[in-house]
Amino acid sequence: MRRKRNSAEPQTLVGMDSSSPLQPQISTYPLVAGGQRYRIEDVYPRVDEGRYPVKRVIGEPVEVWADIYRDGHDVLAAALIWRRETDREWQTEPMRFHSNDRWVGSFTPHATGRYEYAIEAWTEEFATWRHGMDLKLKAGSLTELDAMEGADLLTKAKKGSREALAIIERACDKFIQSGNSAHLLSDDLAEAMASSQERRDLTRSLLFPLIIDRPRARFGAWYEMVPRSQAKVPGQHGTFKDCIERLPDIAAMGFDVLYLPPIHPIGLKNRKGRNNAVRAEKGDPGSPYAIGSPAGGHDAVHPELGDIEDFRALVAECKRHRMEVALDFAVQCSLDHPWLKQHPNWFRHRPDGSIKYAENPPKRYEDIVNPDFASKDADEIWKALRDVILFWVAQGVQIFRVDNPHTKPFQFWEWLIKEVQHLHPDVIFLAEAFARPVLMKGLAKLGFTQSYTYFTWRTQRWELEQYLTELTGYPERDFFRPNFFVNTPDILPFHLQGGEPWMFKSRVTLAATLSATYGIYNGFELLEHEAIPGKEEYLNSEKYELKSRDWNQPGNIKEYIKQLNRARSENAALQQTNDLRFLNIEDGNVIGFVKRDLEQTNVVAIVIALSSEYHNFWLPLNDLTASRDGELHPVIAIQNVLTNEVHPLEWGGARVSIDPHRDPAAIFRCLT
Amino acid sequence: MRRKRNSAEPQTLVGMDSSSPLQPQISTYPLVAGGQRYRIEDVYPRVDEGRYPVKRVIGEPVEVWADIYRDGHDVLAAALIWRRETDREWQTEPMRFHSNDRWVGSFTPHATGRYEYAIEAWTEEFATWRHGMDLKLKAGSLTELDAMEGADLLTKAKKGSREALAIIERACDKFIQSGNSAHLLSDDLAEAMASSQERRDLTRSLLFPLIIDRPRARFGAWYEMVPRSQAKVPGQHGTFKDCIERLPDIAAMGFDVLYLPPIHPIGLKNRKGRNNAVRAEKGDPGSPYAIGSPAGGHDAVHPELGDIEDFRALVAECKRHRMEVALDFAVQCSLDHPWLKQHPNWFRHRPDGSIKYAENPPKRYEDIVNPDFASKDADEIWKALRDVILFWVAQGVQIFRVDNPHTKPFQFWEWLIKEVQHLHPDVIFLAEAFARPVLMKGLAKLGFTQSYTYFTWRTQRWELEQYLTELTGYPERDFFRPNFFVNTPDILPFHLQGGEPWMFKSRVTLAATLSATYGIYNGFELLEHEAIPGKEEYLNSEKYELKSRDWNQPGNIKEYIKQLNRARSENAALQQTNDLRFLNIEDGNVIGFVKRDLEQTNVVAIVIALSSEYHNFWLPLNDLTASRDGELHPVIAIQNVLTNEVHPLEWGGARVSIDPHRDPAAIFRCLT
Repeated sequence: MRRKRNSAEPQTLVGMDSSSPLQPQISTYPLVAGGQRYRIEDVYPRVDEGRYPVKRVIGEPVEVWADIYRDGHDVLAAALIWRRETDREWQTEPMRFHSNDRWVGSFTPHATGRYEYAIEAWTEEFATWRHGMDLKLKAGSLTELDAMEGADLLTKAKKGSREALAIIERACDKFIQSGNSAHLLSDDLAEAMASSQERRDLTRSLLFPLIIDRPRARFGAWYEMVPRSQAKVPGQHGTFKDCIERLPDIAAMGFDVLYLPPIHPIGLKNRKGRNNAVRAEKGDPGSPYAIGSPAGGHDAVHPELGDIEDFRALVAECKRHRMEVALDFAVQCSLDHPWLKQHPNWFRHRPDGSIKYAENPPKRYEDIVNPDFASKDADEIWKALRDVILFWVAQGVQIFRVDNPHTKPFQFWEWLIKEVQHLHPDVIFLAEAFARPVLMKGLAKLGFTQSYTYFTWRTQRWELEQYLTELTGYPERDFFRPNFFVNTPDILPFHLQGGEPWMFKSRVTLAATLSATYGIYNGFELLEHEAIPGKEEYLNSEKYELKSRDWNQPGNIKEYIKQLNRARSENAALQQTNDLRFLNIEDGNVIGFVKRDLEQTNVVAIVIALSSEYHNFWLPLNDLTASRDGELHPVIAIQNVLTNEVHPLEWGGARVSIDPHRDPAAIFRCLT
Repeated sequence: MRRKRNSAEPQTLVGMDSSSPLQPQISTYPLVAGGQRYRIEDVYPRVDEGRYPVKRVIGEPVEVWADIYRDGHDVLAAALIWRRETDREWQTEPMRFHSNDRWVGSFTPHATGRYEYAIEAWTEEFATWRHGMDLKLKAGSLTELDAMEGADLLTKAKKGSREALAIIERACDKFIQSGNSAHLLSDDLAEAMASSQERRDLTRSLLFPLIIDRPRARFGAWYEMVPRSQAKVPGQHGTFKDCIERLPDIAAMGFDVLYLPPIHPIGLKNRKGRNNAVRAEKGDPGSPYAIGSPAGGHDAVHPELGDIEDFRALVAECKRHRMEVALDFAVQCSLDHPWLKQHPNWFRHRPDGSIKYAENPPKRYEDIVNPDFASKDADEIWKALRDVILFWVAQGVQIFRVDNPHTKPFQFWEWLIKEVQHLHPDVIFLAEAFARPVLMKGLAKLGFTQSYTYFTWRTQRWELEQYLTELTGYPERDFFRPNFFVNTPDILPFHLQGGEPWMFKSRVTLAATLSATYGIYNGFELLEHEAIPGKEEYLNSEKYELKSRDWNQPGNIKEYIKQLNRARSENAALQQTNDLRFLNIEDGNVIGFVKRDLEQTNVVAIVIALSSEYHNFWLPLNDLTASRDGELHPVIAIQNVLTNEVHPLEWGGARVSIDPHRDPAAIFRCLT
């Protein structure tokens, strides 16, 4: 039942004008005997009382709960109204009473974009009368006058369909002719009246914003690849053509997103050398994060990689492999960026007239400068950066990994993401902020589709459980979508520096099963682990030099990753993050959890070793159910998705072994 | 440090106009490169994101917490601004950084009334520069240019006091003459710059409303007395003069508030008889809740009680005994109320033209009618009811117990309470709603000063602990002030029907120590307990007949109540509700808890028996501290406030006995 509707009087947050000095006098406060009889409170889902949007993916029902109440004993009705932000008309779904004063309703958007929803509540005058009639009938205290009051209501109902109005008229006539109140008590009439009478005391809640994303926003395996290292000949600068040749290998591992660090021209002035040396040696390629050279800026391609046509070919070829390209969006400019000459006002100058390069005292970044968001021309900077994104969208890019967003104004990102998604609602933004929790959540709230996380450093069972409980709890689950990276060009965590295969497998399984979106930075599959001593950083970082690798070198875990990604694609339970329950396994060095898809037809139990010894333990799965043929059944067995081995459940669980030196994890499908 | 300030750009809840159909085009969203660089979130205290006021009493500090953040590494400052709603100017208190992104500040209003507060955050440009200088000095990378940037900032600071501007000018001159950057790094200069430079990126949070009540709103012992039963001669109708003669007895017990059920003329038509009989016998006095007769309505006094001068005398005499009168405010009218003739439009009429009396099907209340809040003249009803309150305020009444507020529109109460408190901020409203939790909390949120509670029926330790944990938790503690009644004219709970003295004492101690405000209905002190069989109601209810009692009858517990109220008045810890911690006593039939006053100078431990047998148990008081001479000290002994007996603490506690047949409770003052 979906009806188009007009607007009603909205609830306001602040009831009075507090700016004028009030004289002590009577009737200072607005007297609104008519409006807002209903209170609509504790609405779920909502983020900061509707200040920020809730996030869902397409096809996922948006279930809305609220406390709805008014004074007295009258019968109330409530509806959920919703629309795309660009629509004029509201769509309507009825809400149903749950318990006490709690109501629930749901709607399912089938297009990506920005939406808003609200709740309307009103008094059902006829249902109130009918409820009283029922009670009086039972008490034997019904009078003719009671019936006449109901008939009176019939004569006032004028808004319904022709059919409804006919039912009402017929009931009215029959009652007048016979005086028999039974004619007023039929279910047909009650339904006709519900749709035909005035919605008395109609009250509307605040509006709550909502973003509907495409499924990739929630589920995807990311592969970070540095294009210039993809040449087959060691020492040669890789090109987009080389990248294309690498695609079958990456696609075979089951990745969905090919993420490239910046592909733009690299500055020459103050260029960084190998291992972040202040001075580059001849031939050093520089950091791709020093964007801009005489060859162009943010909307250009580094000439050594190829040209824009080559890039478009890479995008197209990725598509053929069911992958898509994600680009890095880093706001800073090298000292050779065209903007420095074109728009000197966009940058901050020092008392001697020089441009102020980036710094975070006492650190100085002599090879880059940041646009000055406090500049008088900041509006132009905002627009130019938006246009950079729109340019790459026009080249077929729909995913952007944003570098260090927490060092640029939050209101800028909020605006930029809205602007881009208004035209291109399928565009995904990943926030690369490894910052304080409040900042990371703030970026997710303002609109970033996905976020980097602290997962990279969380290794103990208690801290993994605590962190995931936080991310999948309220309200975080409604706005923060984690993307679990096991490593990045900047981060080689201590636990990987031993190069043990079981640890690499354990980490990638944790990432790929705890979070629906995860990623690896290339070299992980080869167990690369040479660190700067005492630091969680790669020695000879690819950020400052070309790398050459044997992508099939012995000991690689590509086959393991392939199987992992296949399990993800075959089990809907692993394509979402929030339905997660940890299992109480006695062995503290094994983490176990259950995930379920929305319909609960796919229920998966996962166990992962956090230490290298052999583990034999009891897997408690008491009371676990799964849906089959539309009904919930108890789980009676679990099946290893790799080996197909079946363990029947006995005494509510099963005894399971893990040998980390073979496979540090097991994924079980639950059978009913 | 308190400064007067002007307003700044406020944060808004919804950033865009969503009513116009948006065409897909660029720059749809407002581009505000300048404003709202700060995010101010998770503000505490707040109720429903500022929709409803937080409550405090006069002299109590309002401590405000918030997450405050922006992008980047600049030094920020924040202030708490606040004012009475009727003031134009804001007062300002600095906020200080706590940890991560959390800030805290506090202010203390010294007058009752409605206030509002907000948070402002801005960037300290000079402090940011100075912080960078410190780091560069340590790193030895300071340049002359760095110093010049600081000097540049000095020349822009123009807003400070004459003294501050002089400090700045002097520093600037010295630096220019000497080139020595030390002149720019003094603490004096930093302070002068903080007050003199422009507050860059100034962002203001939402406004949060606040009610400051007088102390009686939080702390008071209520005695409910039916005036017409106070005659000395049995069968005679009591008068206000009789009431005055009762005052010394009630004051001696230590009560603060004398609460009277309605004192207005009582209707004759359909008057109720004894025990709620539909038909009154000759001489039956009727229910005082059937308000109105030819002698007058809500602003008149029942002639048999006396006249308005007699009532004023009662009010004055109460004051002499350090008590005050609370009146009942019941909206309904008897069929003889003058309003029925004066304002027929205020009432609902049935199809036969008769006035519709009150009903909650199948129950009918034939002796009363309710004003129709859906009437076209509802505005007049609102004003007339407000004027009733104002009339009684003019007679010296400052406390109103509102009968059944949940059956009248919530927006009406919100308006009425604001209207009355705007003129008379010391007026207290107690909501008598025994309804669903959401409704009871809704009434407290909209402005009722105090609320009746479910305490009356909570007898088990777990349910008392659970209920108090809810009421003293967040956000309830900020808006819901409980008033724990042990009985009412309508409620004689099952646990009192046995008439056991230990149970009466246990219940009144629970009420008087768990909640800072509590009450008894007269007769409780005499252990009255005759019920309608099977119901939690009094037989021969005083609501429908005159009662005559011997107020000193043997077995009364007046002396016990007197001691209890004295303990309350002597221990500030018992004058507040929210600082409450339950103790883990092994005996499940003893409840124990600790309360502390704001300064923690008065710390009290209370144990109360919930069953009649002798209890001997370990009272665990580990880690308990109290403040003395401004410092916290460990508690080393506890002293019974009645017997003065001292128990030294050993092994973090003490062994304690309770014999409920002597005293079912003990109150201990903690000694350091």
